Amino acid sequence: MNGPYERHAFVCLGGKSCPALGSEAVFAALKAKVADASLRDRVRVNKAGCMSQCGNGPMVCLYPDNVWYAGVRPEDADAIFAHLCGGPPHGPRLYRPAKPGSNQIA
Amino acid sequence: MNGPYERHAFVCLGGKSCPALGSEAVFAALKAKVADASLRDRVRVNKAGCMSQCGNGPMVCLYPDNVWYAGVRPEDADAIFAHLCGGPPHGPRLYRPAKPGSNQIA
Repeated sequence: MNGPYERHAFVCLGGKSCPALGSEAVFAALKAKVADASLRDRVRVNKAGCMSQCGNGPMVCLYPDNVWYAGVRPEDADAIFAHLCGGPPHGPRLYRPAKPGSNQIA
Repeated sequence: MNGPYERHAFVCLGGKSCPALGSEAVFAALKAKVADASLRDRVRVNKAGCMSQCGNGPMVCLYPDNVWYAGVRPEDADAIFAHLCGGPPHGPRLYRPAKPGSNQIA
């Protein structure tokens, strides 16, 4: 591994579903947490295109942990930010995909 | 880990630098490889926003491996796709960040 970040979160801002479900506000809340904590050299929050889980969002995936969140709201930003900084996963929004790969229900 | 994909690649299509350096063609080449191989239920290629490595791109990061590539060209799609499917990293384009976090040279 040669990545410049300890952990990297991606928020779906693409596709037909996540933006309509409020992913832009989730993205903004997470970016603000990182900026406020002056942790931009350790962790990163990025916009991402559709992850093919439409209808389960807003989707956030956190790597290299490979932990995914579904139905995320801005109020979850504190807990997901804590995970991004090395804390435990945020249990209430953990995604449970029905199967590997695409899981589009919308 | 609860992610729906074995490996997940993100191509920077945002920021001021990667698109001008040809990241759209890299993204298209990688997407085509996944589709042609009928591997959409195992691996995923996504667009991403700026990763703050401007000038080193086109940037591609591959998770959960946390292996990053810089200066990627469409001709690298075969080798990066092989990595996405569980093969070894593509040595010639491995990124060597000068430091953790942001590394903007453009």
